Amino acid sequence: MKIALSTDLYELTMAQSYLEHGKKGKAVFSLFVRKLPPNRNFLISCGLETLMEHLENFTFDKESLLYLKSLGIFKDFFLDYLEEYKVKANIYAIPEGRIVFENEPIVQIEGNLPDVQILETVVINVIHFHMVIASKAVRSFLASKGKALVDFGLRRAHTLEAGLFAARASYIGGFEGTSNLEAGRRFGIPVYGTVAHSYIMIFDKEEEAFKAFAKSFPERAIHLIDTYDTLKAIDKVIHLVKEGMPAVGVRIDSGDIPYLTKEVRKKLKKAGLEHIKIIVSGGVDEYKIEEWLKEGAEIDAFGVGTKFITSADHPYLDMAYKLVEYEGKPKYKTSPGKVTFPYKRQVFRTYNENGKMDKDFVVLYGKEREGEKLVEEVMKNGSLIYKFPSLKEIRDRVMDELERLPNHLKELKKAYYEVIIE
Amino acid sequence: MKIALSTDLYELTMAQSYLEHGKKGKAVFSLFVRKLPPNRNFLISCGLETLMEHLENFTFDKESLLYLKSLGIFKDFFLDYLEEYKVKANIYAIPEGRIVFENEPIVQIEGNLPDVQILETVVINVIHFHMVIASKAVRSFLASKGKALVDFGLRRAHTLEAGLFAARASYIGGFEGTSNLEAGRRFGIPVYGTVAHSYIMIFDKEEEAFKAFAKSFPERAIHLIDTYDTLKAIDKVIHLVKEGMPAVGVRIDSGDIPYLTKEVRKKLKKAGLEHIKIIVSGGVDEYKIEEWLKEGAEIDAFGVGTKFITSADHPYLDMAYKLVEYEGKPKYKTSPGKVTFPYKRQVFRTYNENGKMDKDFVVLYGKEREGEKLVEEVMKNGSLIYKFPSLKEIRDRVMDELERLPNHLKELKKAYYEVIIE
Repeated sequence: MKIALSTDLYELTMAQSYLEHGKKGKAVFSLFVRKLPPNRNFLISCGLETLMEHLENFTFDKESLLYLKSLGIFKDFFLDYLEEYKVKANIYAIPEGRIVFENEPIVQIEGNLPDVQILETVVINVIHFHMVIASKAVRSFLASKGKALVDFGLRRAHTLEAGLFAARASYIGGFEGTSNLEAGRRFGIPVYGTVAHSYIMIFDKEEEAFKAFAKSFPERAIHLIDTYDTLKAIDKVIHLVKEGMPAVGVRIDSGDIPYLTKEVRKKLKKAGLEHIKIIVSGGVDEYKIEEWLKEGAEIDAFGVGTKFITSADHPYLDMAYKLVEYEGKPKYKTSPGKVTFPYKRQVFRTYNENGKMDKDFVVLYGKEREGEKLVEEVMKNGSLIYKFPSLKEIRDRVMDELERLPNHLKELKKAYYEVIIE
Repeated sequence: MKIALSTDLYELTMAQSYLEHGKKGKAVFSLFVRKLPPNRNFLISCGLETLMEHLENFTFDKESLLYLKSLGIFKDFFLDYLEEYKVKANIYAIPEGRIVFENEPIVQIEGNLPDVQILETVVINVIHFHMVIASKAVRSFLASKGKALVDFGLRRAHTLEAGLFAARASYIGGFEGTSNLEAGRRFGIPVYGTVAHSYIMIFDKEEEAFKAFAKSFPERAIHLIDTYDTLKAIDKVIHLVKEGMPAVGVRIDSGDIPYLTKEVRKKLKKAGLEHIKIIVSGGVDEYKIEEWLKEGAEIDAFGVGTKFITSADHPYLDMAYKLVEYEGKPKYKTSPGKVTFPYKRQVFRTYNENGKMDKDFVVLYGKEREGEKLVEEVMKNGSLIYKFPSLKEIRDRVMDELERLPNHLKELKKAYYEVIIE
């Protein structure tokens, strides 16, 4: 896939027109979320490293240029401009793993107008998706109160690439690992997996399947027990374990989860097998996690899939890449209901006496005030001047951020945080 | 991105275990949708060609094998098996562009058990996403009653790859084109674009922006008129057109769409400029299209974005890849609430005297009955035996299918079609 060509036609028509009309002055675009979705109290900044990789590869190759020429709408001088194009911008961003709110400039890009205009689509696309997923994942993390979460969503991700970056974003958002091997390879995320119902069905008897899998993977033997009858299956597992079969856990993928998990735990305890973990999957999201745990479900880990990886309750953010400054002058659109604030900005975060976040102030860049600065310089004239933290470091940062997040914002029900634009 | 490695760990643990336990018999897996979402009356079969391309590239390269070895959970014989792996299956599928319903086998894959087990994740991932989007797009197509629709969704697609395949799926689902240039290059889909609000804001006066854009692209001059005041802007456009400025259309991206479009049309008519098209974007989906058109909005074309490309009202399908046969024996899972039907299947579609779809029958493959067969053989022993239709042909097929679809199923409100499993 061609990264630079994965853009909206209008980015290029605008850029050509800007060049034709001498509009090559310094411009600043700001990427921010206008309004949080009804069921998100905060967002996790995510996707910056992926974006910077995309920008590194943001060039128009021969095939792309031939295609553009074939459209018959671009002038030769502009195709030459694209052939030479590489990112030369200054980029200011809130690092990955920070908690952010509406109207906070997540990425700000400064450069010659046509140069930075044509980055709009890729900048929104990459940051938007990562933030949708990280901000969804962290809700399951909070609802699960310390239980382990594993991304099982790849099959219903919106393409394999979405599965890959969702695994990354969900790890940042507090998940322990993923079932996605490519995400394991690319990002070093721990990988987990059990077996499918088809595996159990292949063997003539359920017991045979349990034994066969335990023999193949004694140290990773998580037995899937809901293929036929969960409570009969757990009895079989217990019986086999007493005969020496390895088992590190059991997985339940359907049925009345609170009831079944409580019964399974009772049986395991009675048999002295408390070390066997109970993993639940199938329709898991933060709402189900909260509901099940309230009902006393006995769960050690969740496999979180479809509803998380599609962010099913709200699969998008109202994110925009807006021109905020041109040739030193402020820019904003005045259409009803949509207001942006001009100029490059810094965010100062203040904390109360308990160390909890109190208010954020979005102020003109360069102006000082009390508080912690969130925006950092990451690229200067196209050169990276930022050292990317490891994925683990970003995840740790999220954990720190959650410590400082006011408790009412950690609930699934709607709560607000104050962001003051100065 | 490694395609074969973009899979769930459990596909590979199962495959190794199958090989260790001599489970190498002929298996059939069936991909189908268990239950349609509450707001989908039918689905469009989509993604087969993309899937076949993915399967062609489904091999484990050196890096992938090194990574798998590094996990320390796979045996050497199995890594050798993966090194040699290529798809050798028989594949039966419902071609792209057909209307399908629940419990209909969209793709059926037959081969040695481990060989076909490990295809599960990629098969679901590719077909699921394409069908989510095509089935969403066609709802806008039906609601728009012949108005043109253009995919403007790339920026909020779940990755660039999602934007690319969504453009393909939406074209199949009845859209005219896309703003996505890479989709234009890869699939020959017509590309469209106008300008952004930032373009208008760059110029000191709105009029200057209109003139500048028309000068750059006289044949594609669609003027964005809602940056400041839509009704004042249309007056400016009309004035400029009378002075000779080219204009093929105007775009409105915000505000009270029925009111504004009616006023704009009135003004255009009064000025004798009926040929100038009105394009609407911003928050467009099938529900908005229906509502606006009911209120008499004057719209020639829609730019459809976020809610379509994320399938926001239901971003996933309850799609499964289930083992239905092993060594000639039927296979099905009996857990409560989830039942599958055994064996490879054919779908026969019957039509009533008006040529409308009447009922579908899902019967054992090879059994004959009255009706039109939907399932075709596309791959034999790993070799493609199917000629892919062009994208245009698939789109035309969708149009034919919609002609035959009973009218009540074309409405946005819920309706049912009978599928009989024999």
